[in-house]
Amino acid sequence: MRIAVDVMGGDHAPQVNVDGALNAARQPGMEVVLVGQEDAIRRELGARKQTRSFEIIHAPEVIEMDDHPATSVRRKKESSIVVGMRLVKDGRADAFFSAGNTGAMMAAALLVLGRISGVDRPAIGSLIPTPRGRTLLIDAGANADVRPENLLQFGLMGAKYMELATGKGPASVGLLSNGEEDTKGNAITLEAHALLRESGLSFHGNVEGRDIPKGTVDVVVADGFAGNVALKAMEGTARMLTDLIREQVTRGARNKLAALALRPAFRAVARKLDPNEIGGSPLLGVRGVVFIGHGSSNALAVARALSAAKEAAGQDLVTAIGQAVAGREDKRS
Amino acid sequence: MRIAVDVMGGDHAPQVNVDGALNAARQPGMEVVLVGQEDAIRRELGARKQTRSFEIIHAPEVIEMDDHPATSVRRKKESSIVVGMRLVKDGRADAFFSAGNTGAMMAAALLVLGRISGVDRPAIGSLIPTPRGRTLLIDAGANADVRPENLLQFGLMGAKYMELATGKGPASVGLLSNGEEDTKGNAITLEAHALLRESGLSFHGNVEGRDIPKGTVDVVVADGFAGNVALKAMEGTARMLTDLIREQVTRGARNKLAALALRPAFRAVARKLDPNEIGGSPLLGVRGVVFIGHGSSNALAVARALSAAKEAAGQDLVTAIGQAVAGREDKRS
Repeated sequence: MRIAVDVMGGDHAPQVNVDGALNAARQPGMEVVLVGQEDAIRRELGARKQTRSFEIIHAPEVIEMDDHPATSVRRKKESSIVVGMRLVKDGRADAFFSAGNTGAMMAAALLVLGRISGVDRPAIGSLIPTPRGRTLLIDAGANADVRPENLLQFGLMGAKYMELATGKGPASVGLLSNGEEDTKGNAITLEAHALLRESGLSFHGNVEGRDIPKGTVDVVVADGFAGNVALKAMEGTARMLTDLIREQVTRGARNKLAALALRPAFRAVARKLDPNEIGGSPLLGVRGVVFIGHGSSNALAVARALSAAKEAAGQDLVTAIGQAVAGREDKRS
Repeated sequence: MRIAVDVMGGDHAPQVNVDGALNAARQPGMEVVLVGQEDAIRRELGARKQTRSFEIIHAPEVIEMDDHPATSVRRKKESSIVVGMRLVKDGRADAFFSAGNTGAMMAAALLVLGRISGVDRPAIGSLIPTPRGRTLLIDAGANADVRPENLLQFGLMGAKYMELATGKGPASVGLLSNGEEDTKGNAITLEAHALLRESGLSFHGNVEGRDIPKGTVDVVVADGFAGNVALKAMEGTARMLTDLIREQVTRGARNKLAALALRPAFRAVARKLDPNEIGGSPLLGVRGVVFIGHGSSNALAVARALSAAKEAAGQDLVTAIGQAVAGREDKRS
């Protein structure tokens, strides 16, 4: 599998992308394609005294983190994000990953790759660590306003992704709402509830915000507004709580000593919650395998994302999602 | 101030309500009125060898936690929730608190007290502990579907509540959205953003889910769907994280010993996050001071809620909110 990586993407580009790519390239069957400004890439490779040779695709332009998504994609046709998407479109890469501008990744994917037939709105799936493994929250922020049919499609796409990624059979799906009872929800989710109920998915019913970190279901379906709010509320709470604990356990010499003894335990907790361990978020519903990374991604995150992208490409995720959505359409007609 | 408490409300009724009431009654100027089944109340008071005398208002019926809100309020007219609201309506109590069925509290407040003029939708304000103090999230779940004007009113009511409760001058207000930029949001919040901008409030702009636990603003305005999702996502994350830490730091004898030394530090953290420390949530926009408690409220939570209710009643919260909302209407016309 040939996996393209945007060397220019994210807050710590180009270093972490090159480090992550070199790391991932050790995996059997993984061929990494480096996309970005050639001189910068060669400099990074040189600094690492790399003996292995990599394919480099020169992309002279860079879409910055705060560039306007749609505008930058239209104007910067030779940016690493647009060039990377074209590699997938032309079959010169099996997947593309970037830790760069999320909105620009979405816009470029829609413009260059287009949507899978039957998918009205592609969505971002965010993998949340839970005590039971991982839960996919879809949509994590691409679509602030949705129709009930969009939520159904998010469920179909998310379930197929998790089924392939975990290899554990049909994924359980919950609909994010303001209460567990079937009668709870806003107008859109109440309609979506009925659609999901009839979808043939393993539908658990409504789930609440607390069910996301708990791992009650494999897939939590939400509009991109509530999904994004939940995602960031969880991140913020974890940050607030760990800061508070750090502050308390390092008060005074006695505490500091005890905290030192517990350092491996605290590290184990931090590792379980580290978003870098998860790597990237699949962009589902476009005609290509695309993963998006957090702007703060480190080399571990990049390597993990490239690995997940390789796996999804090897399982022909795009065809599988097309069939999952089409299967539903057949049932409807 | 005469503050009525629903002795029958919540998962640990009647004990915690009586304990909390006895505790609160020690405050100067606090007169607690116990509402519920008289024999149960007298039994609880007897068991505590209480010398102080309390006013008891007999309410033979009980609305259970899983009763249908609107139906139970209509059918159980002699329930403690409905009787408590009538005490406020008739001026026989200055405020009412219950840890019982939240939906029934909402329905009873609307039916018995009615809305403040200019308020289309009363809302529940939930106080979130932050490193900077407390942030009011409004609406925490009463209104799943809203119009932009409702969000504006939530902002006006929430800001007035926090201004009075903290005594720190005008409260800063943020609008919960899927990004900080003004252009982020769904159709409803984009319109509400413009209304809040012109409202005369100290409007910070959009805030994200992570800003709630961070305490970026005093008041976070949200529809009851996203607000509830955020609230429960935060609760669930705190629970998941504390469980994970407990599991890790108690692995092996050496860890257990160190964790024992840190117990005061962990307790300090738990205390800062304990919802019982906060007590209750104000129901804003109805013609009376009403506080709602979590079903799992303990005696501390009940005492804290009664204390907050007394304070709000003493500040004439209802008139203040009426003026805040009307002031806005004057500006509009």
